[in-house]
Amino acid sequence: MRFLRFSQNGRLGLAVAHNGAFHGLFAGDAGYPGDLPDLLNGGLEGLKTAGAALAKGPEIDETTIAYLPPLPNPGKIICLGLNYKDHAAEGGFEVPAFPTVFARFASGLIGHEAPILRPKVSDALDFEGEMVAVMGKKARHVAKADALGHVIGYSIFNDGSVRDYQMKTPQWTVGKNFDDTGAFGPYFVTADELPPGASGLKIETRLNGEVVQHATTADMVFDVETTIALLSTAFALLPGDILVMGTPSGIGAARKPPLWMKPGDVCEIEIERIGVLRNKIVQEV
Amino acid sequence: MRFLRFSQNGRLGLAVAHNGAFHGLFAGDAGYPGDLPDLLNGGLEGLKTAGAALAKGPEIDETTIAYLPPLPNPGKIICLGLNYKDHAAEGGFEVPAFPTVFARFASGLIGHEAPILRPKVSDALDFEGEMVAVMGKKARHVAKADALGHVIGYSIFNDGSVRDYQMKTPQWTVGKNFDDTGAFGPYFVTADELPPGASGLKIETRLNGEVVQHATTADMVFDVETTIALLSTAFALLPGDILVMGTPSGIGAARKPPLWMKPGDVCEIEIERIGVLRNKIVQEV
Repeated sequence: MRFLRFSQNGRLGLAVAHNGAFHGLFAGDAGYPGDLPDLLNGGLEGLKTAGAALAKGPEIDETTIAYLPPLPNPGKIICLGLNYKDHAAEGGFEVPAFPTVFARFASGLIGHEAPILRPKVSDALDFEGEMVAVMGKKARHVAKADALGHVIGYSIFNDGSVRDYQMKTPQWTVGKNFDDTGAFGPYFVTADELPPGASGLKIETRLNGEVVQHATTADMVFDVETTIALLSTAFALLPGDILVMGTPSGIGAARKPPLWMKPGDVCEIEIERIGVLRNKIVQEV
Repeated sequence: MRFLRFSQNGRLGLAVAHNGAFHGLFAGDAGYPGDLPDLLNGGLEGLKTAGAALAKGPEIDETTIAYLPPLPNPGKIICLGLNYKDHAAEGGFEVPAFPTVFARFASGLIGHEAPILRPKVSDALDFEGEMVAVMGKKARHVAKADALGHVIGYSIFNDGSVRDYQMKTPQWTVGKNFDDTGAFGPYFVTADELPPGASGLKIETRLNGEVVQHATTADMVFDVETTIALLSTAFALLPGDILVMGTPSGIGAARKPPLWMKPGDVCEIEIERIGVLRNKIVQEV
């Protein structure tokens, strides 16, 4: 199933792909199954029940909606750095022996088609196309062989990065958390629709139509199951937590001269069988 | 005012210091003003009204309660590294020109007197005594002179760190986020009771009664107002977000031999006029 979380005329809605279109309901409608973050607690079975209810709703006109992040407030936004070999190399880093993790804050998330803000204080705004794995079940000290049973679905992320701020100090957090730079969506696709670990899918970032990153999710240094097994030795991954699985090579910062996103640009990230996440760049005023 | 958030017999309570004791009410009681995170939105005036209501409640027997983190789920837990000159030096780092920021996840928080878990996978469990500033008002592009008007109160944090995991990769996040290692509390003290920016307060960490860190909050490289002004150029700080302001020198990792916290140890962090945060170390099983 493919879910779409959105708002229309100020109302929160949830829709499911059904017969080549999205059908859905609004919070407060009879039959509305609840918001996506809450539905995750019911597992795949709960999502199926919800999807069936949404499929009975009217068709959603996607030209009149605002796309929202599939999960507006994940308990953890766990981002992997240096998780494609070529990308680690282009940044001058060694491939790490353990996942390199930083966090994003939920208040910086935006949806598909929402503007990514180029901040007042920097021009060094970079793209990073990434796959998202969404946790569906608590994972603590789980073996790699059991890890994928804790993932309920996948999505797409643009880990928009303000490079000069990212590199001001030993920790990347500030440059990774500018307001309105973390694009997430448009769809949440349940794990049963994709290969195990969503591995082997083509991932591509385009800036103004030109391909700037191109890889497959099989190129990750730490795949989804390994990441979960390793991180769960430290802390519990909980339903609704998301793993933002790192970006392939091709980032703007590694080019000579650097390629920054500027107002008017359009950045698209496509992952095979998951969708296309598109955002326009707008100057913060 | 000094607030205490707690549970007793499975009920959530909130209390205020009044006539030398804590008086409070439980969620669902007549007159219960709401939980502390929600009260922050009402500003200092709202807290005063809430405090007056709580003061009319019965005296709380602190021997029969579980202390809870003053805020169980801050939108952002923003931690400053290298924010005392002597501490940066003991770690071999230069004093940074911008706040070094990493994030903690709320799911790893525990309250006063709750056990800090020494993990199965590491013995390198270290203490870090820190002051917490709690945001009360949205801060985005605020000048340093206006920044403290956005802070509503203060508390205490033990930024428990698993050092080998912290140093496995360029980013410290995993070692800073082991479950049950982030102690927070016991009290939330409103800003009007403390010096501006809670500066100049004695901060001390004791391990089994022995002083292992000792400084004053005036020794911070980036004080609270400077930190807010700088970070707010990147993102909005929102009510309930917390700034964990960094630790003085004396950490266990910098000692020869290293001094790790082990099961049975008791770690106390005292900040003058804010309180004492005490946690026992227990082995994860």
